[in-house]
Amino acid sequence: MRYDFGSDNTAGMAPSAIDGLVRANEAFTRAYGADETTARASDAIRARLDADAEVRFVFSGTAANAIALSMLAQPFEAVLAHNSAHVCTDETGAPGFFGHGVGLIGLPGFSGKIDPLALHTQLDEPEVGHRQPPAALTLTQATEYGAVYTEEELRHLIEPVKMRGFGVHMDGARLANAAAAGFDLTQIARLGVDILVFGGAKAGGPCAEAIVLFNKALARRLDNRLKQAGQTASKARLLSGPLLGLLESGDWDAGAAHANLMAQRLAAGIAARSPFVLAHPVEANAVFVRMPEEAHARLNALGWACYRFDDGSVRFVCSWATDPAAVDEVIEAIAELS
Amino acid sequence: MRYDFGSDNTAGMAPSAIDGLVRANEAFTRAYGADETTARASDAIRARLDADAEVRFVFSGTAANAIALSMLAQPFEAVLAHNSAHVCTDETGAPGFFGHGVGLIGLPGFSGKIDPLALHTQLDEPEVGHRQPPAALTLTQATEYGAVYTEEELRHLIEPVKMRGFGVHMDGARLANAAAAGFDLTQIARLGVDILVFGGAKAGGPCAEAIVLFNKALARRLDNRLKQAGQTASKARLLSGPLLGLLESGDWDAGAAHANLMAQRLAAGIAARSPFVLAHPVEANAVFVRMPEEAHARLNALGWACYRFDDGSVRFVCSWATDPAAVDEVIEAIAELS
Amino acid sequence: MRYDFGSDNTAGMAPSAIDGLVRANEAFTRAYGADETTARASDAIRARLDADAEVRFVFSGTAANAIALSMLAQPFEAVLAHNSAHVCTDETGAPGFFGHGVGLIGLPGFSGKIDPLALHTQLDEPEVGHRQPPAALTLTQATEYGAVYTEEELRHLIEPVKMRGFGVHMDGARLANAAAAGFDLTQIARLGVDILVFGGAKAGGPCAEAIVLFNKALARRLDNRLKQAGQTASKARLLSGPLLGLLESGDWDAGAAHANLMAQRLAAGIAARSPFVLAHPVEANAVFVRMPEEAHARLNALGWACYRFDDGSVRFVCSWATDPAAVDEVIEAIAELS
Amino acid sequence: MRYDFGSDNTAGMAPSAIDGLVRANEAFTRAYGADETTARASDAIRARLDADAEVRFVFSGTAANAIALSMLAQPFEAVLAHNSAHVCTDETGAPGFFGHGVGLIGLPGFSGKIDPLALHTQLDEPEVGHRQPPAALTLTQATEYGAVYTEEELRHLIEPVKMRGFGVHMDGARLANAAAAGFDLTQIARLGVDILVFGGAKAGGPCAEAIVLFNKALARRLDNRLKQAGQTASKARLLSGPLLGLLESGDWDAGAAHANLMAQRLAAGIAARSPFVLAHPVEANAVFVRMPEEAHARLNALGWACYRFDDGSVRFVCSWATDPAAVDEVIEAIAELS
Repeated sequence: MRYDFGSDNTAGMAPSAIDGLVRANEAFTRAYGADETTARASDAIRARLDADAEVRFVFSGTAANAIALSMLAQPFEAVLAHNSAHVCTDETGAPGFFGHGVGLIGLPGFSGKIDPLALHTQLDEPEVGHRQPPAALTLTQATEYGAVYTEEELRHLIEPVKMRGFGVHMDGARLANAAAAGFDLTQIARLGVDILVFGGAKAGGPCAEAIVLFNKALARRLDNRLKQAGQTASKARLLSGPLLGLLESGDWDAGAAHANLMAQRLAAGIAARSPFVLAHPVEANAVFVRMPEEAHARLNALGWACYRFDDGSVRFVCSWATDPAAVDEVIEAIAELS
Repeated sequence: MRYDFGSDNTAGMAPSAIDGLVRANEAFTRAYGADETTARASDAIRARLDADAEVRFVFSGTAANAIALSMLAQPFEAVLAHNSAHVCTDETGAPGFFGHGVGLIGLPGFSGKIDPLALHTQLDEPEVGHRQPPAALTLTQATEYGAVYTEEELRHLIEPVKMRGFGVHMDGARLANAAAAGFDLTQIARLGVDILVFGGAKAGGPCAEAIVLFNKALARRLDNRLKQAGQTASKARLLSGPLLGLLESGDWDAGAAHANLMAQRLAAGIAARSPFVLAHPVEANAVFVRMPEEAHARLNALGWACYRFDDGSVRFVCSWATDPAAVDEVIEAIAELS
Repeated sequence: MRYDFGSDNTAGMAPSAIDGLVRANEAFTRAYGADETTARASDAIRARLDADAEVRFVFSGTAANAIALSMLAQPFEAVLAHNSAHVCTDETGAPGFFGHGVGLIGLPGFSGKIDPLALHTQLDEPEVGHRQPPAALTLTQATEYGAVYTEEELRHLIEPVKMRGFGVHMDGARLANAAAAGFDLTQIARLGVDILVFGGAKAGGPCAEAIVLFNKALARRLDNRLKQAGQTASKARLLSGPLLGLLESGDWDAGAAHANLMAQRLAAGIAARSPFVLAHPVEANAVFVRMPEEAHARLNALGWACYRFDDGSVRFVCSWATDPAAVDEVIEAIAELS
Repeated sequence: MRYDFGSDNTAGMAPSAIDGLVRANEAFTRAYGADETTARASDAIRARLDADAEVRFVFSGTAANAIALSMLAQPFEAVLAHNSAHVCTDETGAPGFFGHGVGLIGLPGFSGKIDPLALHTQLDEPEVGHRQPPAALTLTQATEYGAVYTEEELRHLIEPVKMRGFGVHMDGARLANAAAAGFDLTQIARLGVDILVFGGAKAGGPCAEAIVLFNKALARRLDNRLKQAGQTASKARLLSGPLLGLLESGDWDAGAAHANLMAQRLAAGIAARSPFVLAHPVEANAVFVRMPEEAHARLNALGWACYRFDDGSVRFVCSWATDPAAVDEVIEAIAELS
């Protein structure tokens, strides 16, 4: 089976991430994140975002998102999220686990972007004691369906939420791909996002994401919180080192740019060579194709791993490691399905 | 500051672990642990333990222990643990977090080993509705104070617990050191341990431990459990690969043997050259020294990081990476304190 | 404002419940449920259900349901429930709180009854690690929309669930009304329900419900569980006494029969005298009326408290205390709205 | 078996509490605490405490305490408590359950009063990431061992805690007994207590306690919090009514005064007639007697229920319902043991 397009976590670490790890690995150093590599990687992230922030490196995007939401909403409150957000569909209820029952209120919208009207309607609902009222908004950039919010779109979602005193979380598992698509990362803090999960794994790193707290009021006893939640790395440099390698080399951005380009190539090939229609605009590194079950099964049988999503389309994901030749091969395979 | 003896997580990954990671990192592969490297590493662990078991690789010993205990005890129950066990003193209440309020019943005993009499007394307490009755026992091998349980000692603790139908967890963060001290790992399953946390990080790995379920009845929907708890690695091979490298090269054992030897050298030097007394027998890779506060402060001021423990002694830990020359240097420094 | 039809908890305790309380209140007695009144009330419930069971009296239906579900599903699992079930819409996420993140999978179906086809479709979904797979089914009898399941209907829902080894919970907040509508309570245990919440408050009791465990395997350390969850009454006889009074006097049944009859009278009056259409069959003690917002507002303004539900209809609830004259008054008021 | 002295929850409701319940029970009223009785009972509590506060009536002291602590400390923090506090020893770990793993730091002190020195020592401990640092203090008034803090003593415990920005909770399960012993309830708010649990059950009420939030900043979405936690009474008047009856009649105070007087009588009798020594000063409604196991067993065999406590003494508790003749009888029985 070929996993080239199965997900963006089927690729390994990029060479610059490995280099960063090997460099960080040398000699004895202080544990639990009090080392120099981790300090430098935190600086690099702050620089990339052009913002002051508390930064911590954790193992898992699922945990990072869930812990972030638990900072913004109490168990008897809820988080506003797109119906297709990773926290809603792919994290086995982690927000409820780390948030001790915190609710999720699903919102609709095209290609994974929350519809502002739906958000407003929800915000206007009267509060009652027997339901979990919203306390925070979570946004995914790029979205699960490969779309990228514009600054303007984000502003229209964030402003009414902040006006009510609610918090804002951004799931940036594919933030590098959003940046490569033109989204200006230096605007995240300015838009009022309180907590960003800065993606590492899908950007060519190991299993390592950074929790970035622009709102430092949330950082009180953060190290205790992360330790208790099993997200403190004793050998923190092994997480921060690879991310530092990616950022210093420029590969965090370059790898995502390559991934996006490969997605464009794939989308163009499918459009040109097959009868199948794209389900979503291709703005980041994923291509969603409307494909009958039978065609999907045949493609799998030919050895190409790819999965059907909740909207009924089949997803193909590119990464820093995607080989153009493999793109052409899979286009060929898809073309011959029909 | 020199962190050579501060902990066994101040060293980096051993070369064979890096090699294992680099080998595992090649090409595209299935995510979430369904890859070949992970299968081989699981086999290697089963072989080392000479037992059938479900094996999963997770990021954090804290999480691994807490999740294991949550499988053995309900929130309204408690776990019997040595007072000085890592779960009691160093994990920021993680068992209560992952176990939703599960209790810990602290037991005394020399050098981190649970006193069988204290265990029996506790087991004989009548159950009442307003307290959390015990449901499981956790054992640490080697202990937090560098001692190693004999098989016989473990049998005397495990048998009365199993007779009551309770579960048994073993925290093996320093299992390699226990093995190097002569503990036969193939007896763990036979002794009736239900869940073992097989240590990786302190044995020269990255932040990676293996949860080993000898009792497969506990494995139902284990992948959902770990995913929800933020302990599923998308790029699982980056955890299993280094452990495979350590196990296949023999370095998992050899590194621990080296660490234990360095601890012996350190203990012998302190005994010979300083007036300070050892607080515990040196059976694994740590040396605990009774040292006045003032002497400890001067040693720190000389640049040697080391920490005072709850029993009042100062701990020095050796690892796969400990340089004999550094051992001699720190002995020299300690000798000159008096 | 008149609350006669606002809910079935706007009425007080029935006289026989007060009598039961006063009788139970006499003299000193053992606390925490080990008293004679509680034993007799448990017997009375077992007799009414014609089944052996562990019985405990708790304060809150919300807690009773949530605790029951936490016995049947782990945090990383989910419970199958009707979209309109009280656990889904009216308990502020209590299942997630008591169940530490346990999920709810909403199912459709007319008048609060789960559609068997929807259930089967859900049961046939393949399990994946990143979602919460179902572990239990919850049924509400009578339903939130005043319908009553037949034995046959229940059998078709329970059988496929039990075949997969999943648990079954029944929310019987309005079980008395279901019984008065002809549902045979002695079939609940025989149908395979594991845990029943036997309703007290809505049947004329104080805030008191009984958790009935037909599946005694679930009862291990139940008293610890309830105590920890804040649902153990020190003066348990004050909960069990009133329920005993209701059961021994026959008022638990008679009050519900009266409530159902009043609902019939109300429904008939609305059908005969107003242009408004009933939204659901009237099988228990509630009447749901399709009524424009403006009419609803006027009715409220006239002093009649009644609430719009998620299906868009307005609910009128009768209880043991409903006065036929009040029914006629509200019919008159509704008739004049148009 | 006679339960007169087993606990203060072996007595029923006082007549004025029953009267209050019967009065509150009349007619239809708004549910969930929005009724007039509940408003009046809240006023009565505020008046008794001479302070503004948010007041809610809940079922269980265990839940009230645990929910209060969960408002003051996060899961990765801890609460400072006397070793013998009810939250530590008698609530089956409820603080950890409602607080999702929140820790308890036990402190010593005579007769259930926290030793100020021990508190200061704990407060001066340096914070580290791998432990749960304190975030709140809980005080029990009267204490579990029947002592009553003076205002001065409370001030010395509360001030250093508030100076660090931590919260303060008071468990007032026996607050009426403290008041009857001379403690001025109007000082509670002035001393800086954030949350008081105002005891109902042990003061002659049903299972009903009031959560009193002097610090209204904590009250945000309190109704959602209580509903989710299973502590919202649909028929709230059945909780508030009896407490209103107790307060308006003066029985809340008079009953406690009677209980304290009976404890004095019992203590004096034991001192005069038996060789047994009192273990604690008798300031409230409990008498603790140092008594050999054999004597205790014989007393139980004679039909007098009483329990041995963690300090090794045997407890006798008086209540509003204690009959002086019964006091004399039990003195006689104790006198004859020797």
